[in-house]
Amino acid sequence: MTNPRLNRRDVFPPTGPEISAKSWLTEAPMRMLMNNLHPDVAENPHELVVYGGIGRAARTWDDFDRIVGALKALEADETLVVQSGRPVAVVKTHADAPRVLIANSNIVPHWANWEHFNDLDRKGLMMYGQMTAGSWIYIGSQGIVQGTYETFAEAGRQHYGGDLRGKWILTAGLGGMGGAQPLAAVMAGACCLAVECDETRADFRIRTRYVDEKTRSLDEALAMIERWTKAGEAKSVALIGNAADVFPEIVRRMKAGLPMPNGRPDIVTDQTSAHDPVHGYLPQDWSVAEWRERQESDPKAVERAARASMRVHVAAMVDFWNAGVPTLDYGNNIRQVAKEEGLENAFAFPGFVPAYIRPLFCRGVGPFRWCALSGDPEDIYRTDEAMKRLFPENEHLHRWLDMARDRIAFQGLPARICWIGLGERHRAGLMFNEMVAKGELKAPIVIGRDHLDSGSVASPNRETEAMKDGSDAVSDWPLLNALVNTASGATWVSLHHGGGVGMGFSQHAGMVIVADGTEAAARRLERVLWNDPASGVWRHADAGYEMALDCAREHGLRLPAILGN
Amino acid sequence: MTNPRLNRRDVFPPTGPEISAKSWLTEAPMRMLMNNLHPDVAENPHELVVYGGIGRAARTWDDFDRIVGALKALEADETLVVQSGRPVAVVKTHADAPRVLIANSNIVPHWANWEHFNDLDRKGLMMYGQMTAGSWIYIGSQGIVQGTYETFAEAGRQHYGGDLRGKWILTAGLGGMGGAQPLAAVMAGACCLAVECDETRADFRIRTRYVDEKTRSLDEALAMIERWTKAGEAKSVALIGNAADVFPEIVRRMKAGLPMPNGRPDIVTDQTSAHDPVHGYLPQDWSVAEWRERQESDPKAVERAARASMRVHVAAMVDFWNAGVPTLDYGNNIRQVAKEEGLENAFAFPGFVPAYIRPLFCRGVGPFRWCALSGDPEDIYRTDEAMKRLFPENEHLHRWLDMARDRIAFQGLPARICWIGLGERHRAGLMFNEMVAKGELKAPIVIGRDHLDSGSVASPNRETEAMKDGSDAVSDWPLLNALVNTASGATWVSLHHGGGVGMGFSQHAGMVIVADGTEAAARRLERVLWNDPASGVWRHADAGYEMALDCAREHGLRLPAILGN
Ligand SMILES: NC(=O)c1ccc[n+]([C@@H]2O[C@H](COP(=O)([O-])OP(=O)(O)OC[C@H]3O[C@@H](n4cnc5c(N)ncnc54)[C@H](O)[C@@H]3O)[C@@H](O)[C@H]2O)c1
Ligand SMILES: NC(=O)c1ccc[n+]([C@@H]2O[C@H](COP(=O)([O-])OP(=O)(O)OC[C@H]3O[C@@H](n4cnc5c(N)ncnc54)[C@H](O)[C@@H]3O)[C@@H](O)[C@H]2O)c1
Repeated sequence: MTNPRLNRRDVFPPTGPEISAKSWLTEAPMRMLMNNLHPDVAENPHELVVYGGIGRAARTWDDFDRIVGALKALEADETLVVQSGRPVAVVKTHADAPRVLIANSNIVPHWANWEHFNDLDRKGLMMYGQMTAGSWIYIGSQGIVQGTYETFAEAGRQHYGGDLRGKWILTAGLGGMGGAQPLAAVMAGACCLAVECDETRADFRIRTRYVDEKTRSLDEALAMIERWTKAGEAKSVALIGNAADVFPEIVRRMKAGLPMPNGRPDIVTDQTSAHDPVHGYLPQDWSVAEWRERQESDPKAVERAARASMRVHVAAMVDFWNAGVPTLDYGNNIRQVAKEEGLENAFAFPGFVPAYIRPLFCRGVGPFRWCALSGDPEDIYRTDEAMKRLFPENEHLHRWLDMARDRIAFQGLPARICWIGLGERHRAGLMFNEMVAKGELKAPIVIGRDHLDSGSVASPNRETEAMKDGSDAVSDWPLLNALVNTASGATWVSLHHGGGVGMGFSQHAGMVIVADGTEAAARRLERVLWNDPASGVWRHADAGYEMALDCAREHGLRLPAILGN
Repeated sequence: MTNPRLNRRDVFPPTGPEISAKSWLTEAPMRMLMNNLHPDVAENPHELVVYGGIGRAARTWDDFDRIVGALKALEADETLVVQSGRPVAVVKTHADAPRVLIANSNIVPHWANWEHFNDLDRKGLMMYGQMTAGSWIYIGSQGIVQGTYETFAEAGRQHYGGDLRGKWILTAGLGGMGGAQPLAAVMAGACCLAVECDETRADFRIRTRYVDEKTRSLDEALAMIERWTKAGEAKSVALIGNAADVFPEIVRRMKAGLPMPNGRPDIVTDQTSAHDPVHGYLPQDWSVAEWRERQESDPKAVERAARASMRVHVAAMVDFWNAGVPTLDYGNNIRQVAKEEGLENAFAFPGFVPAYIRPLFCRGVGPFRWCALSGDPEDIYRTDEAMKRLFPENEHLHRWLDMARDRIAFQGLPARICWIGLGERHRAGLMFNEMVAKGELKAPIVIGRDHLDSGSVASPNRETEAMKDGSDAVSDWPLLNALVNTASGATWVSLHHGGGVGMGFSQHAGMVIVADGTEAAARRLERVLWNDPASGVWRHADAGYEMALDCAREHGLRLPAILGN
């Protein structure tokens, strides 16, 4: 029997101004689906895997083909319905309704665990959608470079007076997301030692200039860091090894006072795919080949061993924290696993969201991104310039846009990301739409965001960790976000479960909207790009954050039970 | 401190053709919310409880007032957003978008249990929405009378050649839903012995003629049943007692060959609120007063004791099953609790859905209901007649409509329910809309359904128990149902978690649409009342049910991955 998920063919999205679907509103999801599987974008495109362990864009290759076929045939008053990567139905709707509605990996709570999911997955009844994989708005590493850069920069501000020169960051995982860490660290001015067990992943990051050096020796890696930090140079090294071995060894040396740059790492974090204990985390003392083989033949054994190693790994992170090193969980659920494995103080160190991101969410600020359907980098450079003109006083934004142009290679369709908030996003969208209308860009622009955003996610170990009112686990909010975006006229809307923290631990919603230069699109953009970040402002205002309440008042939001208006 | 959920005021929906909101599309949800709390409709309106233990219509009385205020002010291009019974925001949408979007009781799976919910509930961050309580389309007992009648009649067909004369049904629970059982049994031709611990509940059912007699003595109850079954009379008796005592006692007598009508019950089921172990099930040897008091003061103790009693209760049901008595779980999750309490064979007897309801769901047949906003019973009688004319050959429907008119007293706004399917619902909706347009009815009609329907629920212990492909727990389907109804233009749409089987065990979606006699409404009705049952047909077609596949082909549904079209 052939594997319906394996195919040697390479997928590239069409580019340019000619379309094969019936409108840009259906051409756009088709190109973006294909872009998610572009060889420069996806981690493992031949198996439909976009990023994050097993985050897929379609359930099988047949489903991929049928989605493409359905999108090409879709009329302006029809909607394609996708259930866990499978195009189940085409229904009659209307022009202002979304063209695609997606639900991925959702399981009734009592059964929402990896074991049940894997069983459904094996039976061909599901796929894992991650966040932007199954919702067709992944754009490669740039998204995560930006987010990680903001996080490291904020950590630098809070702990090192805003200056990361001569500092070094210890982390692990150079996968789809984690691979952004060395570059983000370097952009933020710091050195970076990243432990990665799979040499091919490290090589990929060397090739794309996200990481500078590679070694198999901890001594050698530390010597490089020593040299760079001394010289005030921001550079990075990938250490081929297992984080569950390396982290405790560095703790040992630190405690023993053995030589080490600055005597200890200056920031510690981790981006192995710990959220998926079967596919995402190499157990100690296993080879990568053995690991991959036994993921198929004996997944339970892999899981057991991986979970035990994660406990060791987190225990070392707690040691760093207790020694005063700023340590943060980067949203992969590793503390939860360690806790379940009996590590009582696994949650001693914080997640990155309450530590650094929540103040942004209170103002609806989050990972706004856009992509040039023309495929022409010039279109993005034009929007870069236009964004600088639209927000002339936002220096932080200007610096990011300049650095990004310089250091970040486009992957697949050219795209840009920056964090902006309520009152800004709809203005950017309307401006892009006008640029399309005026012919300043060669084709329409697609505008979307990560599910990790202000109003679109409930994830108590990550985005909604430690909410002020204790509402961390309330998932009415992301469901309402999806319903509101559907009612407002986004081009496609998705509801996912699992994402970066794994089965059972989050529910979240995606939104993408096309600026095709029409009047109708302008009306939809204005509604969607206002309501979507606004939903984050109400969510945080309802939780009692003053900053969100101020933002709501300032923007005249009507919040009956919250502001009494 | 005053309890924000307690208020002595009585709520009655306005009736007649004058409206105080800006359109019928906003007047309708306002009247229906109020109707849910009408003293003749709600189980405990002063505490905002509509039915099913703690299923509420609004989170607090303040929230109720603010919802009403917001609906009155809502414009034709605005949407009210309700989070667990609290009106959090008013957003700009468009005329074809829903006027209200609701998410109730949704919790991220890992935290989706009673303990966490109760904690959120106590903190004022949530309410329990049940199914139609928080989505404002509960119409009193009629809905459940119809469903229960269909179920008992089908059981009669399968086990007793279609004739329930001289047979008797043993059950428990005469609450909001369960109270329908004696009447449904009698309508289906059987006698009924219903155990109820709370005498006030039994008295309410006596007053409304849903049950015929009441006693505190099992011997007396059995003597009545003996008399009636012998005489071929269909009548019912409420036995005041605890089901966990009475069921085993009847088993004991049956096994011992002691005198009993027919030597054993002919059908056994149960509708205590077992889904909610703190508020829904009286533990053995507790008084009702003590139970209520300790629900507040020591909920953990209540839960422990209730769960232990449920085990005893289910063990007796398994004994009936093993003795050859048709025994069914009526969707209150009692088998799950018994299993968790260590009763290995708790799932020996089936749920009512796979046993009797699934074949209907495969054709999109489910609990279609409508309500006369005029408040005038004549409007319903007119629609009854019109339905008979629209479906002239459906004898089953005709019989139900006649019996319902005869035996069922309206509660609150007059309403009717009947089970119809894909291809029928939109015709009924369009017909009602035309009747409104022509002035044949005094005001618009509201059309909705239970969340227990063909495409709107994932509930592995009830609606999706034992699906052919093993997809019982896949909840992409109800989420897609809500998104599709939102995109199609339903007047209000809701997404709930918990419902009748309790926290962690189901996710489901509600839909209501207003037939106000306009052309625009006709277009929306045609889309919504087609897509909504169609979503049930695809869900079952995807699971491999031939009947659903046939139905899909027959109606020309476009299902890319399922039919390849
Ligand atoms: N926004 C967020 O909250 C956020 C951002 C980035 C990443 N994450 C999370 O971080 C994790 C990583 O994401 P990704 O997309 O990079 O995943 P990925 O699966 O593509 O990469 C994980 C990498 O870790 C490596 N690895 C696994 N076990 C290891 C071990 N024991 N030692 C060293 N290396 C090991 C793997 O070889 C792989 O290259 C995920 O859990 C993701 O959800 C969250
Ligand atoms: N469609 C369905 O699947 C469906 C239909 C009807 C009911 N149900 C389920 O059935 C249950 C009942 O619903 P309801 O709305 O009537 O609830 P309810 O809370 O209004 O009524 C439950 C009744 O059971 C009585 N009771 C509790 N413990 C008892 C005991 N030990 N012995 C005897 N009586 C006892 C209570 O006094 C109460 O009157 C719920 O769990 C509901 O979800 C499901």
